[in-house]
Amino acid sequence: LKSKLPQVGTTIFTRMSGLAQTHNALNLSQGFPDFAPPEGLARALGEHAVQGHNQYAPMAGLPRLREAIAGQLALHRKVTVDPEEEITVVPGATEGIFCAITAVVEGGDEVIVLDPVYDSYEPAIALAGGRAVHVPLTAGSFAIDWDRVEEAISPKTKLFMLNSPHNPCGSVVSAADLDVLALLAEKHDFYVCSDEVYEHLVFDGRQHRSVLQHPVLKERSFAHFSFGKTLSVTGWKTGYCVAPPALTAELRKVHQYVAFVAVTPVQHALADFFEAQPRYPVKLASDYERRRDLFLSALSESRFSWTPTAGSFFQLLDFADISDESDTALSERWTREIGVASIPVSVFYENPPTQSVLRFCFAKSDDILLEAAERLCAI
Amino acid sequence: LKSKLPQVGTTIFTRMSGLAQTHNALNLSQGFPDFAPPEGLARALGEHAVQGHNQYAPMAGLPRLREAIAGQLALHRKVTVDPEEEITVVPGATEGIFCAITAVVEGGDEVIVLDPVYDSYEPAIALAGGRAVHVPLTAGSFAIDWDRVEEAISPKTKLFMLNSPHNPCGSVVSAADLDVLALLAEKHDFYVCSDEVYEHLVFDGRQHRSVLQHPVLKERSFAHFSFGKTLSVTGWKTGYCVAPPALTAELRKVHQYVAFVAVTPVQHALADFFEAQPRYPVKLASDYERRRDLFLSALSESRFSWTPTAGSFFQLLDFADISDESDTALSERWTREIGVASIPVSVFYENPPTQSVLRFCFAKSDDILLEAAERLCAI
Ligand SMILES: CSCCC(=O)C(=O)O
Ligand SMILES: CSCCC(=O)C(=O)O
Repeated sequence: LKSKLPQVGTTIFTRMSGLAQTHNALNLSQGFPDFAPPEGLARALGEHAVQGHNQYAPMAGLPRLREAIAGQLALHRKVTVDPEEEITVVPGATEGIFCAITAVVEGGDEVIVLDPVYDSYEPAIALAGGRAVHVPLTAGSFAIDWDRVEEAISPKTKLFMLNSPHNPCGSVVSAADLDVLALLAEKHDFYVCSDEVYEHLVFDGRQHRSVLQHPVLKERSFAHFSFGKTLSVTGWKTGYCVAPPALTAELRKVHQYVAFVAVTPVQHALADFFEAQPRYPVKLASDYERRRDLFLSALSESRFSWTPTAGSFFQLLDFADISDESDTALSERWTREIGVASIPVSVFYENPPTQSVLRFCFAKSDDILLEAAERLCAI
Repeated sequence: LKSKLPQVGTTIFTRMSGLAQTHNALNLSQGFPDFAPPEGLARALGEHAVQGHNQYAPMAGLPRLREAIAGQLALHRKVTVDPEEEITVVPGATEGIFCAITAVVEGGDEVIVLDPVYDSYEPAIALAGGRAVHVPLTAGSFAIDWDRVEEAISPKTKLFMLNSPHNPCGSVVSAADLDVLALLAEKHDFYVCSDEVYEHLVFDGRQHRSVLQHPVLKERSFAHFSFGKTLSVTGWKTGYCVAPPALTAELRKVHQYVAFVAVTPVQHALADFFEAQPRYPVKLASDYERRRDLFLSALSESRFSWTPTAGSFFQLLDFADISDESDTALSERWTREIGVASIPVSVFYENPPTQSVLRFCFAKSDDILLEAAERLCAI
C-alpha cells in the first residue's frame, strides 16, 4: 500500500510516552495531568452510565452540554453563541480540528501554519489535498511575525491555523495580533482555525484572547476547545468547536461521517459539572502558574535558560549551555539516562532553526516536578 | 464556503431520531438498544474513572483491551491476531472505517460499494478524492451479484466495501461469497474494508463469516467491529479495526491525527468485561432472534410483507400492499401520525429501485416492540 502520509511516523507524543514507560522515566513529555480531575466529575461519569445514559447522543452533542458551553463562553469570554447552530461537541479537539480543516480545504488550497506547529495540522491539510505554508514564529519570543505571514499569503490561501496559548511554545496572542489577523483575513478572504485548548491556562495577569471575541474573526473562524485540558481528563477525549452557522453546518457534515458523536455519559458528566461549578476554570490560571513557578524555581541552580511560559501547561527549557547534541537525541537520552522525558521542539518545524529547546509538561504533582527538576539540575 | 460534501445533508439517523423525539414516537429508526448493557459494565466505567484512569491511553488502544480483543477473535472466530501490530482501538467503527478509507483511497481511485449502502462510506470516499462505484444488491434477497461486481471493477478499483451482517438489509455473506471476493481482490489487486459491526447478531443457525477467517482476504482487509453494538453501549463510541501490520500502520497514521485515541475509562471497562465474561457474545444471537420473532409474530395480522432478517438488529418491512407513497414520505408521516419511527431504505441508493421498504430496529424492549407492532397492524 502506497502511504497517503509518507513523511509521517508515529506521533512524537506516542513515541516519547512509550519511551518514558519503557525506561520508567518521569513523563513530562506528552501533555496530560498526573493529578485527579475536579471532585465529583469521575463519580458523575459512573452515575450517568449506571442510570442508563449509554446510547448515542445527538450528533452535534447533548443539548444540555451545549447549553452549558454557551454559558461558559458567556461567563468567561463575554460572547453570545447559539448552542443549536454554532456549537458542536466533538470527541476531542483533534477531531474538531481535523473536521474543520477537512470541511474547508480543497485540492490545491494553501493553509498557513506557524512553526513550531502542532503535529496534527499538516497531515489533516495534506489529506484534504492542501499544502501547508510554514511561517516561523519569531526566534526567542515565539511571537507571530505578521510581515512574514503577509508575504506567505497567496491567492490560494484558504485557511490560517492559529494556536494560542501556543503548543509547544506557550506564547499567547495579543488583541493587536487578532486585529492584524482580521485585516488580513478580510483582505485576502481566508478562514481561521483557532486552537484554543489551553484557553484557561494563561499566566502573570495576561488574558486569553479568543477569536470569538473579535467581531470580524468570529464570522470566519472555527474555534476549538478541550474539556480534557480544562478539567484534567485528557482521556475523556471530549471538546467542542464553535463556528458561525454556515461553517458549523459544513463541519458537522464531515464530523457526522468521521466519528459521528462524542461519548454520552461523558457529555452528561461534563454538563453536570459546569451547571454546578461554572466558575471552576477561573482558578486554573493561578493553579498552573504555581506549578510552573515551582518547577522553575527548583531549576534555578540548573544550567538551563528559559523565559517563564505565558500560557499552556508547557515550559520550554534551552539547553545550549549544557549540550550541543540535537534536541531529539537529547530528549531520548535523558529519558533513558536521567529518567526525565520531554518533547524535542525541532520536530514541529518544516525547517528547524538552530536552537536547543525541549518542552516539559508541568501539569504534574509537586513531587514529580521537584524530582524532575532535581534530576535536571544534576546534569 | 463552498461545500466539500454538497450532496450531503444531515444523516438520516439524526433526522429520524430528531423527528421521533419531536413527535414522541417509538424510535425504531436509528440503531441503538433501549435496554441496559450487561450487568457490571456501567459500574466498571465509573470505577475506573474514580480510580483515576482518566488520561490518554496509548494511541492504538490500551494493551489490556487489545489483548482481550485478540482473545475474543480467537474464541469466536478461531483466528490469531497480533494485538500489538494488527489491532487498533478506535472511537467507534465509523472512525475506523473513515480512517481505513482515508488511508487507502487516493485522488482518482474507485471504490466499489453495494447499494443500499451505509451512509458514511461515500462521503469518506469523496473526501479522499475517490469515487464510489455503486453496485446494487440483488432485488428482494439483497445478495451480492458477483457478476455485476466484476463488471464494475476497473483498473482504478482500489477498495471494496463489504458489510455483513448488512445494514440496512440484514443479509449475511456466505463462505462462497468470500471466496469469490478473494479471487477478485487478488486478480484485480484491491483492498477490502469489511464492516462487521453486527458480527454477533446472526440468526437461524447461520454463522458470521469474517474476512479475518479467510486466508487471502485477511491479508488485504481492514475488518471493523463495534463494542457499542455487541455490548449495548452505542453511546460509548468504541470499536476496533483489525488489519495486517502494513495496513494497520497506515490506518494508525491517519487515526492518530483524526481522533488520536478512544476514551480511557471506557477501554478499561470493556477490558474488564471481556476478561470476566469472554463468552457473553455467544448468547446475543438467540436473544436478538427472540426479539426479531416477537416483533414479526406481533405483525402477523398486519399488511406488511417481509423475510425474517438473517442478521443485524434491523428488520425490513415491505409496505407495497399498504401505500404507494415513497418510503421517505411514509417514514416521516408514520413517525408523526402513528408514532413509530423507521428508516426509509431508498436513501441508501445511488439509483433507488422501485421498492417500498422501511427499516425497523428491533433492539428494543418487548413492550416497545409489541406496542410498535400494534400500531403498525392498525394501519
Ligand atoms: C494528542 S497527544 C498529545 C497531547 C498534546 O497535545 C501534547 O502533548 O502536546
Ligand atoms: C451512526 S448513528 C446510526 C446507527 C446506525 O448505524 C444505524 O441506525 O444504522
